[in-house]
Amino acid sequence: MLQELHVTRGIIESFTKELLDHTKVDVAIVGAGPSGLVASYLLAKGGKKVAIFERKLAPGGGIWGGGMLFNKVVVQKDAQHILDEFEINYSPYGENYLIADAVELASTLISKAVKAGVKIFNGVHVEDVVIKNGKVNGVVINWTPIDMVGLHVDPLVVEADYVLDGTGHDAAIAKLVAKRTHCCDVKGMGAMWVNEAEKLVVEKSGEIYPGLYVMGMSTAEVYGLPRMGPIFGGMFLSGEKVAKEILSRS
Amino acid sequence: MLQELHVTRGIIESFTKELLDHTKVDVAIVGAGPSGLVASYLLAKGGKKVAIFERKLAPGGGIWGGGMLFNKVVVQKDAQHILDEFEINYSPYGENYLIADAVELASTLISKAVKAGVKIFNGVHVEDVVIKNGKVNGVVINWTPIDMVGLHVDPLVVEADYVLDGTGHDAAIAKLVAKRTHCCDVKGMGAMWVNEAEKLVVEKSGEIYPGLYVMGMSTAEVYGLPRMGPIFGGMFLSGEKVAKEILSRS
Amino acid sequence: MLQELHVTRGIIESFTKELLDHTKVDVAIVGAGPSGLVASYLLAKGGKKVAIFERKLAPGGGIWGGGMLFNKVVVQKDAQHILDEFEINYSPYGENYLIADAVELASTLISKAVKAGVKIFNGVHVEDVVIKNGKVNGVVINWTPIDMVGLHVDPLVVEADYVLDGTGHDAAIAKLVAKRTHCCDVKGMGAMWVNEAEKLVVEKSGEIYPGLYVMGMSTAEVYGLPRMGPIFGGMFLSGEKVAKEILSRS
Amino acid sequence: MLQELHVTRGIIESFTKELLDHTKVDVAIVGAGPSGLVASYLLAKGGKKVAIFERKLAPGGGIWGGGMLFNKVVVQKDAQHILDEFEINYSPYGENYLIADAVELASTLISKAVKAGVKIFNGVHVEDVVIKNGKVNGVVINWTPIDMVGLHVDPLVVEADYVLDGTGHDAAIAKLVAKRTHCCDVKGMGAMWVNEAEKLVVEKSGEIYPGLYVMGMSTAEVYGLPRMGPIFGGMFLSGEKVAKEILSRS
Amino acid sequence: MLQELHVTRGIIESFTKELLDHTKVDVAIVGAGPSGLVASYLLAKGGKKVAIFERKLAPGGGIWGGGMLFNKVVVQKDAQHILDEFEINYSPYGENYLIADAVELASTLISKAVKAGVKIFNGVHVEDVVIKNGKVNGVVINWTPIDMVGLHVDPLVVEADYVLDGTGHDAAIAKLVAKRTHCCDVKGMGAMWVNEAEKLVVEKSGEIYPGLYVMGMSTAEVYGLPRMGPIFGGMFLSGEKVAKEILSRS
Amino acid sequence: MLQELHVTRGIIESFTKELLDHTKVDVAIVGAGPSGLVASYLLAKGGKKVAIFERKLAPGGGIWGGGMLFNKVVVQKDAQHILDEFEINYSPYGENYLIADAVELASTLISKAVKAGVKIFNGVHVEDVVIKNGKVNGVVINWTPIDMVGLHVDPLVVEADYVLDGTGHDAAIAKLVAKRTHCCDVKGMGAMWVNEAEKLVVEKSGEIYPGLYVMGMSTAEVYGLPRMGPIFGGMFLSGEKVAKEILSRS
Amino acid sequence: MLQELHVTRGIIESFTKELLDHTKVDVAIVGAGPSGLVASYLLAKGGKKVAIFERKLAPGGGIWGGGMLFNKVVVQKDAQHILDEFEINYSPYGENYLIADAVELASTLISKAVKAGVKIFNGVHVEDVVIKNGKVNGVVINWTPIDMVGLHVDPLVVEADYVLDGTGHDAAIAKLVAKRTHCCDVKGMGAMWVNEAEKLVVEKSGEIYPGLYVMGMSTAEVYGLPRMGPIFGGMFLSGEKVAKEILSRS
Amino acid sequence: MLQELHVTRGIIESFTKELLDHTKVDVAIVGAGPSGLVASYLLAKGGKKVAIFERKLAPGGGIWGGGMLFNKVVVQKDAQHILDEFEINYSPYGENYLIADAVELASTLISKAVKAGVKIFNGVHVEDVVIKNGKVNGVVINWTPIDMVGLHVDPLVVEADYVLDGTGHDAAIAKLVAKRTHCCDVKGMGAMWVNEAEKLVVEKSGEIYPGLYVMGMSTAEVYGLPRMGPIFGGMFLSGEKVAKEILSRS
Repeated sequence: MLQELHVTRGIIESFTKELLDHTKVDVAIVGAGPSGLVASYLLAKGGKKVAIFERKLAPGGGIWGGGMLFNKVVVQKDAQHILDEFEINYSPYGENYLIADAVELASTLISKAVKAGVKIFNGVHVEDVVIKNGKVNGVVINWTPIDMVGLHVDPLVVEADYVLDGTGHDAAIAKLVAKRTHCCDVKGMGAMWVNEAEKLVVEKSGEIYPGLYVMGMSTAEVYGLPRMGPIFGGMFLSGEKVAKEILSRS
Repeated sequence: MLQELHVTRGIIESFTKELLDHTKVDVAIVGAGPSGLVASYLLAKGGKKVAIFERKLAPGGGIWGGGMLFNKVVVQKDAQHILDEFEINYSPYGENYLIADAVELASTLISKAVKAGVKIFNGVHVEDVVIKNGKVNGVVINWTPIDMVGLHVDPLVVEADYVLDGTGHDAAIAKLVAKRTHCCDVKGMGAMWVNEAEKLVVEKSGEIYPGLYVMGMSTAEVYGLPRMGPIFGGMFLSGEKVAKEILSRS
Repeated sequence: MLQELHVTRGIIESFTKELLDHTKVDVAIVGAGPSGLVASYLLAKGGKKVAIFERKLAPGGGIWGGGMLFNKVVVQKDAQHILDEFEINYSPYGENYLIADAVELASTLISKAVKAGVKIFNGVHVEDVVIKNGKVNGVVINWTPIDMVGLHVDPLVVEADYVLDGTGHDAAIAKLVAKRTHCCDVKGMGAMWVNEAEKLVVEKSGEIYPGLYVMGMSTAEVYGLPRMGPIFGGMFLSGEKVAKEILSRS
Repeated sequence: MLQELHVTRGIIESFTKELLDHTKVDVAIVGAGPSGLVASYLLAKGGKKVAIFERKLAPGGGIWGGGMLFNKVVVQKDAQHILDEFEINYSPYGENYLIADAVELASTLISKAVKAGVKIFNGVHVEDVVIKNGKVNGVVINWTPIDMVGLHVDPLVVEADYVLDGTGHDAAIAKLVAKRTHCCDVKGMGAMWVNEAEKLVVEKSGEIYPGLYVMGMSTAEVYGLPRMGPIFGGMFLSGEKVAKEILSRS
Repeated sequence: MLQELHVTRGIIESFTKELLDHTKVDVAIVGAGPSGLVASYLLAKGGKKVAIFERKLAPGGGIWGGGMLFNKVVVQKDAQHILDEFEINYSPYGENYLIADAVELASTLISKAVKAGVKIFNGVHVEDVVIKNGKVNGVVINWTPIDMVGLHVDPLVVEADYVLDGTGHDAAIAKLVAKRTHCCDVKGMGAMWVNEAEKLVVEKSGEIYPGLYVMGMSTAEVYGLPRMGPIFGGMFLSGEKVAKEILSRS
Repeated sequence: MLQELHVTRGIIESFTKELLDHTKVDVAIVGAGPSGLVASYLLAKGGKKVAIFERKLAPGGGIWGGGMLFNKVVVQKDAQHILDEFEINYSPYGENYLIADAVELASTLISKAVKAGVKIFNGVHVEDVVIKNGKVNGVVINWTPIDMVGLHVDPLVVEADYVLDGTGHDAAIAKLVAKRTHCCDVKGMGAMWVNEAEKLVVEKSGEIYPGLYVMGMSTAEVYGLPRMGPIFGGMFLSGEKVAKEILSRS
Repeated sequence: MLQELHVTRGIIESFTKELLDHTKVDVAIVGAGPSGLVASYLLAKGGKKVAIFERKLAPGGGIWGGGMLFNKVVVQKDAQHILDEFEINYSPYGENYLIADAVELASTLISKAVKAGVKIFNGVHVEDVVIKNGKVNGVVINWTPIDMVGLHVDPLVVEADYVLDGTGHDAAIAKLVAKRTHCCDVKGMGAMWVNEAEKLVVEKSGEIYPGLYVMGMSTAEVYGLPRMGPIFGGMFLSGEKVAKEILSRS
Repeated sequence: MLQELHVTRGIIESFTKELLDHTKVDVAIVGAGPSGLVASYLLAKGGKKVAIFERKLAPGGGIWGGGMLFNKVVVQKDAQHILDEFEINYSPYGENYLIADAVELASTLISKAVKAGVKIFNGVHVEDVVIKNGKVNGVVINWTPIDMVGLHVDPLVVEADYVLDGTGHDAAIAKLVAKRTHCCDVKGMGAMWVNEAEKLVVEKSGEIYPGLYVMGMSTAEVYGLPRMGPIFGGMFLSGEKVAKEILSRS
């Protein structure tokens, strides 16, 4: 038998096993940005079975580009414990801020989440949700490139007790559920006001429909909160808050 | 003063300092794929000042997608020490192979490289090289999105003692130098033959023109070696070989 | 458990089993056009394990559109036994021709091939071949939409004793092997001359490199034969000839 | 005379005869997906003159791709008689489901429908309907590629006693009629809920405006029913129900 | 029966009759620009059965746009008899030139050619030629939009004693025949030199391979003659010369 | 002096003279389709100074393509006098219809309109209107390709006593005026009903806002009338009606 | 050290210094068209620190193209003092107008504005604003090419006491603020009426929300005023009025 | 008469007069980049009639974007007299360099060139040249947007004693002449080497075919010289050298 075959079979077998194993999870997170990665890590540490579905090939969301491609990011001091937890380097900037390397931040969040047991399915698009008897019960997934070229191919389904919308400005899952159930009014993010935004995003992140949580910029989009800049404290704390809430419920 | 301003100035100041500091490096690596990341890590560990220039927003090259989006990868056993060095999890597959999670592999290579001191400039395209008196002396860079939209904007320059082509199948830098200097004949990769490819890629990786090294699939492209599949042992060892060669020279 | 999950798992399990089972086949056919479908059917009937890899979602190649979207096709009388074998309806036209419905022809060829045991992987693109020691040993596959959007994702491999190029005017596999091995000169199809073309295509179809066969319009492309029109006798007979040759060899 | 001419004239003559013959039909079905193919087959068996107009070159709709390109499909047990009627192979999965090969399913449905007397015009787009005195009387057709490139070319007309909307999620014909007549409110499909969806889609499929029937996912789109996945029982039964209703009326 | 049906059937029947009638013509002209229209008119007047195949919906080629969209055109005085023959208005400009309205010129050439008996098939692309025993015997046609969207649909064939390349700068048919037969060397047009160009284009227009004639800018492209501007004398005279040559041969 | 210069200057001078001369006209017609061409011809015959502005290079609108590229068109008998006036050939079809060649129809309408004194500016897009004191006073024009590539270039203005919207299904000018003045409600065309449409389109064509007339399919779009097919009687009569109305007013 | 490095460092250092220095300005102007350039010049002359953010590489807005690419522009006589102030050449046209060269006008406005101390950041897109306690406090900027290719990269912020919307027909900033605060109703520009437009645009230009001013065509868009043509008096006077208002406030 | 008409006629008349006046010039420069602008200014100052044809709407070439959009540029000290001549501000950087604002540099070069009498036709593409008896005699022009959308519209001609290729890296005119006449071998620019490049570009700039001059980066492209960065001394001096050479010849 060809050695090439060995490689091929190894990949198919190990991936399929994991995919089948994750067709039913405790928590399905949509979007592998800052809030999704932090939440996934804490949930996995807390014993939950967690899968993240990320549209792009590379997780990390908007972290990689820093501000205007100047690849540095700022974090508020009140989120310093998150950076410490993930062992990410930073230097202080003024009294209230920390500065970190965008590439180190993104890659380390991903690396530690996976090592903590989170399974990330990248190149996978969540195109719909499963709703039964007034509760979100899972996500409907497809390969991203299929969606990009507009091929007519049916999706598959992943069952989940909790679905977390970490899709950022799009609030894609919240919008889907709002459209499907008329549960909620997605107000659209306001103008930028960094400090106000941070406070409110953390405060408002949580469940908006049975089984569905918003966090990070999805929260701002849903509640019409001010917009944040390339500053990540609020996103970390928002993911942390949602994770704690779920862990406390079960 | 607005707090938003603080964030903005923090990012501009810290990025510019680092950019200016890296306009002159010991080693400039083009492409943050498996061989580039391994080489960069070892070179930084060995005391070199290293910058990687990566076209995309996210480093990691072709690792993220595994094989056909089944996000697992296979590594030959002879490269097990690389996985161990980076503390990447794996499980054995047959006698000669190890299987790892593609997302963990990509993110951990990046995270550890940055922590080792490598500076990764992402969203940056190398559009040319500097050649003087028969030696490659640096790279000519521009923002990737400028190249993507075809704007007429001039590039800037980074000086480097060594330039490493880790651009994979494109062998983009080797092709540029070949076109500029007629130094070498880029033969184009052959059909797939995994084992043969691995052996030859490691063997042939090295300097092809004063100041310019090829490694990983760039080596295969230049020398007309067989193609590899989603298997990373050869790429790791090739990056390792080039790093050692440079460390031994200076 | 959700019933949706049942559906999902059923699809993943049954597909994966079949995919793993077909990572090693007797015959791999690239392209599910008229010659590929006929050859696959006869080979499967003859006891071979056969997989077809088809770029598009729907097999059938150029049959569906008839001539200028007038969805009728013409078949030469000397291929009448193929239509009869597949139980496809036709009416005579002049002394030497038969006319059939393009949609019936395409769907019935596919339906019967699958029922005969052929496994068709659609939406799958063959991006390279495996060549070892001067013989084609398999094909290198990827999802078509990945190729269409230009994502950087590695392929997988299918081992095969024989690879048949049924890609039509492209002669995509023959061109790949010619480029990789410099084995052969792909001459490019000539001007149209229906009768001459039919005779020559059948005559020349066969092995052009160890392990690689051309048939149908791929034969015309490789040998510089005249072009055929919306007439399918030669394509059927060419597929039949190649199938018989392989069955007689083993 | 050239033999090429024979081929050309044979195609033009036989196609034109059939096209003219089908400018007036009993039933015009828009879309050759699972419900359209089943309905067309039963109607033709029942003595009706039936034409299907399909936008794409290949009929079959979303069947070919299975779920996420894993080309297997699931069918509920209560639709087993449809699979049996079409002689499609399947294997049981759990208590309530059957699994079939997507390629066999699509090709066999098409093949049997054509053999039963259905005429499929593929590559043809229905761009409008004919409505007179409060009844849909026909469809307005054009070549699909003309629509795709935005050429300004007028359409032609096919008269029909009944028009069936089998366009799936688009419910394209229902939407056209709703826009033209303000007859009905197209509610848009709900979130996924496979079993509930199947039951309701079959129940609601039928006439929504004099002369216009919805079936399959068009029914779900019009009535705001839950979405189905890659599972085809409901679509088959819905096509069957509409066919029976029409046969019983005339 | 619907009146819409009457319209539909009238169009299909009258078009098909004419299409079938023109599957065999004396002269097939590719491209309805100035030389093609003049040649077609004179050939039809001389008793030949003539069909023009024009890629675009509107015949007229480059005439409509005048120079830089200033829709006036200049004609040399030695072609005044052509304008008179077609009853096109003009005013003198200097000693040697006439100026006409571009829109009147294009529309009148087309109108008179059709009234003289020429059949123009517009929206039809010539994708190949028929060559037998060293002579061009016909053209291979398809709908232009099919070619534009890249659908895989086979073409049909029109038999012709003479094929005239009036495709302008492309010399599309001459290039096809050159590629198919290696008969001739297509040199590519030279820099602009209006007067020289006119003289040489008329002189060189004629048969370049048995059955194939070039005229107008196709002649310049084949023989490497200078380029003309928005001036039409040479194109008219070139079409006239080719028409006369064919009429004198038979 | 170069002869090329002569050609260039002749074109610039003659075009500019005509353009300046037509910056003030009696009637500005937007769109050179069937109704616009008929109206322009009759108005010019009646002594009006008329300019047509046509987006595309070739006037003729949707006439060229016949129905589904079968380039024949149908005309109702009650418009026979228009065909006779333009000397266009036709043959009777059934009791109430005439069939003509689409290419002859389009080219002859254009040719005769220009010879009657109409100036057609092709490749020119009407991007706005001039409205003063509750009356349309002119059109705002630009080169079409500027609009197509989205360049930021200001338009110029043509003054006109009457503006006629002959833009067909778009009713582009009526929509602009409706948006600018809230004068009118553009209802959108209904489903196809050929005879009803013809009667109503002729009846309703006329002035909808001081200085602005609709005709042909623009009338159907504005008043929500049924859609017509490839049948031109109503369009001709509608253009004729509007022309007569304007001639009678002044 | 390489001389190339000198060039690189010189550019980075001088640009960064200026960028940091302009993260806090008195006046931020969005769009470098006629009103923006005039306002910026007068404000800088009046002692304000002014930055213009311009999407395109070249400032100048719609001036460069004149009317329909005829690169001349018209200015009303009442704005003659602006042309004189900038030393731009003109010639009188009729009693009330002046004609200038479009290229001279654009380049001279830019050149003089920069020499007066205005800093123009070109290739920079304003994607949002900062609003706190009911006042616009700054703009949110990003590189234009990032926006054009749709990369997910966060923006940076510039603080400003006054923000001027000089984006022309888009009124992009006014629309953003209207969407964020529901402060105002953006009515959309009316039909063309040059003189009326000029008078009203100057009259209405000014503050529409605390900290936000509109001028030039943005004013017309916000207040529903008539549209102007390629005539620049009103735009100059509008920029002048806004500049004076701001200078008088502080 | 409408005032809008006045504006329109003023623009048409003044532009046409200038266009006609410049259909015959002493020097036609293609491309309004740094070398073209400097050369045009000096030639106009020296009494020549000069027209520049620039593809884009805005002249200035690659100056606007500085390096990587950091809009500062560097000039070698030996070109300081050019900056002084144009009254452009700069500050010294190190011993050998001057730094200027990119926006000031571009706009001031354009403004001063026009004021010196140069006519710039922007939005105009040179698509060919006129060559007679072995000498370039003029350029063949068209509107750029026509070229961008691929419309088939003929060009016009401008006669010139000298044609200067200032198209930069493209060396578009030199390549055209090389293709038309086989006069010269365009070698393609080498790798970057700023100082070497500057020296050689100035040295080699000059006539390469009777009537055709290269300057700036076109010179590097033709002679295979090293590439320059965002540094403009060599380009200025090269334009100056060519201008002096032409002034000395006549």
